[in-house]
Amino acid sequence: MVLTGQITNFFLETRRHTEAICQPLEIEDYVVQPIIDVSPPKWHLGHTTWFFEEFVLKKHFEDYKCFDSNFSFVFNSYYETVGKRVIRADRGNLSRPSVAKVYEYRNHVTENMKVFLDKGLTREIEELVEIGIHHEKQHQELLLTDIKYILGNNPLLPIFSPSYKEHTPDNYNQEWLQIAEGIYSIGHNSNDFCYDNELGLHKVYLQAFNISNKLVTNLEYLAFIEDNGYKKFDLWHAEGWDWVKQNQINAPLYWHLIDGEWRNYTLNGLQNVDWAAPVTHVSYFEAYAYAQWKNCRLPTEFEWEIASQNFNWGKRWEWTESAYLPYPNYKKAAGALGEYNGKFMVNQKVLRGSSIATPAKHARHTYRNFFPTNLRWQFTGIRLAK
Amino acid sequence: MVLTGQITNFFLETRRHTEAICQPLEIEDYVVQPIIDVSPPKWHLGHTTWFFEEFVLKKHFEDYKCFDSNFSFVFNSYYETVGKRVIRADRGNLSRPSVAKVYEYRNHVTENMKVFLDKGLTREIEELVEIGIHHEKQHQELLLTDIKYILGNNPLLPIFSPSYKEHTPDNYNQEWLQIAEGIYSIGHNSNDFCYDNELGLHKVYLQAFNISNKLVTNLEYLAFIEDNGYKKFDLWHAEGWDWVKQNQINAPLYWHLIDGEWRNYTLNGLQNVDWAAPVTHVSYFEAYAYAQWKNCRLPTEFEWEIASQNFNWGKRWEWTESAYLPYPNYKKAAGALGEYNGKFMVNQKVLRGSSIATPAKHARHTYRNFFPTNLRWQFTGIRLAK
Amino acid sequence: MVLTGQITNFFLETRRHTEAICQPLEIEDYVVQPIIDVSPPKWHLGHTTWFFEEFVLKKHFEDYKCFDSNFSFVFNSYYETVGKRVIRADRGNLSRPSVAKVYEYRNHVTENMKVFLDKGLTREIEELVEIGIHHEKQHQELLLTDIKYILGNNPLLPIFSPSYKEHTPDNYNQEWLQIAEGIYSIGHNSNDFCYDNELGLHKVYLQAFNISNKLVTNLEYLAFIEDNGYKKFDLWHAEGWDWVKQNQINAPLYWHLIDGEWRNYTLNGLQNVDWAAPVTHVSYFEAYAYAQWKNCRLPTEFEWEIASQNFNWGKRWEWTESAYLPYPNYKKAAGALGEYNGKFMVNQKVLRGSSIATPAKHARHTYRNFFPTNLRWQFTGIRLAK
Amino acid sequence: MVLTGQITNFFLETRRHTEAICQPLEIEDYVVQPIIDVSPPKWHLGHTTWFFEEFVLKKHFEDYKCFDSNFSFVFNSYYETVGKRVIRADRGNLSRPSVAKVYEYRNHVTENMKVFLDKGLTREIEELVEIGIHHEKQHQELLLTDIKYILGNNPLLPIFSPSYKEHTPDNYNQEWLQIAEGIYSIGHNSNDFCYDNELGLHKVYLQAFNISNKLVTNLEYLAFIEDNGYKKFDLWHAEGWDWVKQNQINAPLYWHLIDGEWRNYTLNGLQNVDWAAPVTHVSYFEAYAYAQWKNCRLPTEFEWEIASQNFNWGKRWEWTESAYLPYPNYKKAAGALGEYNGKFMVNQKVLRGSSIATPAKHARHTYRNFFPTNLRWQFTGIRLAK
Repeated sequence: MVLTGQITNFFLETRRHTEAICQPLEIEDYVVQPIIDVSPPKWHLGHTTWFFEEFVLKKHFEDYKCFDSNFSFVFNSYYETVGKRVIRADRGNLSRPSVAKVYEYRNHVTENMKVFLDKGLTREIEELVEIGIHHEKQHQELLLTDIKYILGNNPLLPIFSPSYKEHTPDNYNQEWLQIAEGIYSIGHNSNDFCYDNELGLHKVYLQAFNISNKLVTNLEYLAFIEDNGYKKFDLWHAEGWDWVKQNQINAPLYWHLIDGEWRNYTLNGLQNVDWAAPVTHVSYFEAYAYAQWKNCRLPTEFEWEIASQNFNWGKRWEWTESAYLPYPNYKKAAGALGEYNGKFMVNQKVLRGSSIATPAKHARHTYRNFFPTNLRWQFTGIRLAK
Repeated sequence: MVLTGQITNFFLETRRHTEAICQPLEIEDYVVQPIIDVSPPKWHLGHTTWFFEEFVLKKHFEDYKCFDSNFSFVFNSYYETVGKRVIRADRGNLSRPSVAKVYEYRNHVTENMKVFLDKGLTREIEELVEIGIHHEKQHQELLLTDIKYILGNNPLLPIFSPSYKEHTPDNYNQEWLQIAEGIYSIGHNSNDFCYDNELGLHKVYLQAFNISNKLVTNLEYLAFIEDNGYKKFDLWHAEGWDWVKQNQINAPLYWHLIDGEWRNYTLNGLQNVDWAAPVTHVSYFEAYAYAQWKNCRLPTEFEWEIASQNFNWGKRWEWTESAYLPYPNYKKAAGALGEYNGKFMVNQKVLRGSSIATPAKHARHTYRNFFPTNLRWQFTGIRLAK
Repeated sequence: MVLTGQITNFFLETRRHTEAICQPLEIEDYVVQPIIDVSPPKWHLGHTTWFFEEFVLKKHFEDYKCFDSNFSFVFNSYYETVGKRVIRADRGNLSRPSVAKVYEYRNHVTENMKVFLDKGLTREIEELVEIGIHHEKQHQELLLTDIKYILGNNPLLPIFSPSYKEHTPDNYNQEWLQIAEGIYSIGHNSNDFCYDNELGLHKVYLQAFNISNKLVTNLEYLAFIEDNGYKKFDLWHAEGWDWVKQNQINAPLYWHLIDGEWRNYTLNGLQNVDWAAPVTHVSYFEAYAYAQWKNCRLPTEFEWEIASQNFNWGKRWEWTESAYLPYPNYKKAAGALGEYNGKFMVNQKVLRGSSIATPAKHARHTYRNFFPTNLRWQFTGIRLAK
Repeated sequence: MVLTGQITNFFLETRRHTEAICQPLEIEDYVVQPIIDVSPPKWHLGHTTWFFEEFVLKKHFEDYKCFDSNFSFVFNSYYETVGKRVIRADRGNLSRPSVAKVYEYRNHVTENMKVFLDKGLTREIEELVEIGIHHEKQHQELLLTDIKYILGNNPLLPIFSPSYKEHTPDNYNQEWLQIAEGIYSIGHNSNDFCYDNELGLHKVYLQAFNISNKLVTNLEYLAFIEDNGYKKFDLWHAEGWDWVKQNQINAPLYWHLIDGEWRNYTLNGLQNVDWAAPVTHVSYFEAYAYAQWKNCRLPTEFEWEIASQNFNWGKRWEWTESAYLPYPNYKKAAGALGEYNGKFMVNQKVLRGSSIATPAKHARHTYRNFFPTNLRWQFTGIRLAK
């Protein structure tokens, strides 16, 4: 829960941060979409803006003048309720609206929101604005990982920012934390903001388990590669094994074997692999196979939520063994916002924690992120349990 | 656990039943594979035989003479450990070995098994044989549903058996059973046979819930169709909605709207829909959408396992909301048998119960069946919870 | 032109020959369709029968009783005029009608035709019957090559007929025939039967050219393989090069490199390659690349038609450089028969000559066969020009 | 043949014209690739530059300093001889090199070429430069049609240039020209520049034919649409009919039926259809079907070449019935330039004439353009023969 007086600042600071992320980009970088899972930066700028226009300004601010009626069509993502949308695979084919025009659109909506917010809000609308802000924060993370994909798959491997550090050193050793068998409470339990998928505080029964206090490092993962982990079918799910073979996967995304040495692309360009850093850009399939190879397993999201009070997290999104399913008594919101979470609750895995790309005030230990099992372009990581 | 003296009978009776299922077929029906999920009947006959040859006779019966060394290649399904295999999509392209030759192969292996079983078994080998028998029972069910698909997708809609009844009437009303909140025990807990995925008896905490004593009927499902359930995107998962649109789904599999009236293909040919029978041949996506439309939900597999002691089941495999995941302390078997279950534990949904196609001695309330969310060719059904 | 008195014999002998081709088959072999270009033998038996039923008996024999009204749907190939048809990719999924039933259907139609033919025919109907007979002869060739594909792609490599010889030795040397520049006449020019695509006798102007009196042999083709012909992109069309890489082509169809030695599948099973025999089962792409490698080219169909009076032909269908296009003044027939040829006159290459699989009375030097550039399952061959 | 003194001017004027075409573009428009057949404008700018760098400067100008060694990889199109290349489908994913950098590259190469040209050229190198210039002119046409596709498929339908006219009125009537039977001479026959595929002057024999003096107009084509031409399978090739159905084609590319009225996108934005203008953006399949509907046919390329001396042409590329094949005695150039034409001589149709997008000095009546039968994004047109 944000105090009413603070929401304008929270809104403006979020809007500014989105733009700050894009500051190093060339105009061309805003436009392309190398794979379907990645969206052009321009689209993120427009879509987060469209959210405020569509759900707040058009509905609740009678003085509002729509910037361009076509933009609703261009920047809708998947909200079937709100009408036609550009199919995801086509986002990278749209040279117009231009980047300059999208920034104009952003400013138009930001300025209108400022006026609107200053008038004071009902609790209901304030909640809507809060969702819009967190929605934009979610896109800030995608923006950064999408930019990494766009530049990291360019044959010229351009540097995004020479000062960007994907990892800062840890100075503690790997240990196994022991969690006792028993009944635990799961779910969001405060007045702070959370998404609907975290609600429904409920009890679970956990068997005793051990969980690592540290993420798997690049050095540890290298041992898996060198032990031919990518060639041993019995470590993999059948579907994972097909994925490895069809895509000829033999290392995390962005790793390149050059003259016999592993290097990897980072937002600071091509670098030597930092062996002490946590391995990242691995799929669930790889996280699972690695755990099998170590005779361990991935934690469930419930184990993670309970144990996370006892270890450091926040560098890499951590794959769990849990499928993304509704909590008991899950209720989706009415109308378009009901499309936010519920309709994705099938054939996805839960990730817990957050990553270096997660913006401030957007991480909490009840947060449930989710992705299909084959995706690697997020800053994902591996934490073992047993 | 089968008494040692009984295993030969159990084996022979199972072998005979497989052949009895195929008795009404024409030779041509044994050969085709209209979709990748369906296998030709001939292949089922060979594959269940290969299992005994490969894992029992070749390894443990020194007098055994291999029937044909090429058959190992032809009838392996997915056991990567055991060498090359005919890829699934190609099974329907193999006119040879002929049906007569496959029956010869069956007899050869059955006769050798009889001699082998009569010599007495160690406990370890007995367990292997038991798995082989249950493996064949599993294929008996697939055999029947694959035959239904093969005939039911033929434009001539041939009758499999004029006496086959897919449903016998119930005479009780729908009611909601109430299950109290609390700690419950889940998993297999006897000396009888079960698969490895049922082991690992463990506690779960369930919130209070209600569950229907009866499956959803064709009549109830018709109301969903007539209320345009297949056209309301907000009832569906995003992935389910794509599936509906791409495949132009508008009714359960085998339903045909002919001159304004719904008819459906059964193993007894094209029939009027039996409105009192439980709806069947629906995907998980449809089961979920139906439940949404009723403001209900599907039970989890844990809820089902606990509640099933209080209702009739066994007509339709029942979709649950649970993803197919390992139980705590799940250990997969060493070697090829370890490929039986574990490697499928991703992106599948658990079905509980059993169906009219399930053979005798193959149903139990801890049994965990599983399929991808879009498949419909099994005798699936819907039970609501709330 | 067949004398009226002879047509019944011609008809019956053709019908019998189709059945004779199938004599060595197991029932299972009649059913499968391993690739879309191949049809199940059962389908050929039915389709050639359907042609007589649909275009002759139903239209012109008032006493005719239709065998089964569904068969029209099942055995239509591509005649859009005549109504719905089973799409080509699904022919191998149809276990029914059974082989026995298809033979019953054949007998029914053959017997009715016999009665009908004995009544005497108008010239117009006689021409229709003649087309039906030649249509069936065309399918006899496909039947044999489809059978070869079905058996030759079975991992058991079954023998079709131990007495089938794909080649009988030649005893003359390769020489270059010289044809003088000038005006030549092209097209069918007699009262004998021909297809509509051969009509329209017309003049062409040919530049002087040389053409080989002999087909390229397996030994000569081996030299191309051993000189890495499949790895030299500059020998190939861009589209051919993509085809080689995507399909990992490195030899003619049915060649297998086993323990360092080339063997090939023939209708008489797996054999040593007969080095003196003409190379066969090559695509147009391969024929072109081979010619490039020899600093030669393929003849045009016009060059072939003129020169073929001076060399032996009839063992292999010979790829020409000519695209399949209408002759000047080409007119397609009215109605369904107009679909026979004209609608395929795009993106196909002309083949001239005939092959060992061509039935008697079905080869003539004006015959224009045609296939897409990537297909290899016919007995194709290569003749060089320069 | 260009006089030696003129080649620098010809070169510079061509380079400038390419840049002039791009003048109205936003930076974003340079980057995207909505379909595989269209290349990003940035890529055209780079690729035409790379041609001079790779084939002229690197090989023949020893003072030349390569601008960026990675560009060879990025801007190679299909020249397998010259090394790795970015696959065509990925061109639109490359945000870098930036547009500014590509213009720098252009200037670098143009300036170096200027110095190089001023030193005087051997005849051989002059020919190479001439090919480079004509290569760039070919890309000027593609540049314009690719820009039209990029903007015309954007939901905002932006205007490229408000002054661009795709048609200027004719004032003469349609008539049939009669050409007599006889021997005619085909192929390039002067010292002016031509591509290798036009060489090999040779005789052909033409039957008498009639050809229209005028292209088919939008009004005439509308009659075909309104007579359900897109729904009558018998007007189409089998492959064309599949194309119509799969892509739901019902009008030329860029036509939109809005509120019951046909409008079309032009480089001057969305406009009313100009009914007197020649129909454009039709595929070969459509051109053929239209001709069938009119009981006419398309001319062959030989008929066109002979008859074109008697009618106006130059507004639309005209589909012919001829497949793109080598002329007698066609020899492809040695090395990479040999890849220019020969390797595309399969499964393409010849277009004759030129279009409004064709730059000055790039049209001649022996020019052989070619495209696959389904493409429509060029300014194609239809001229009937009979």
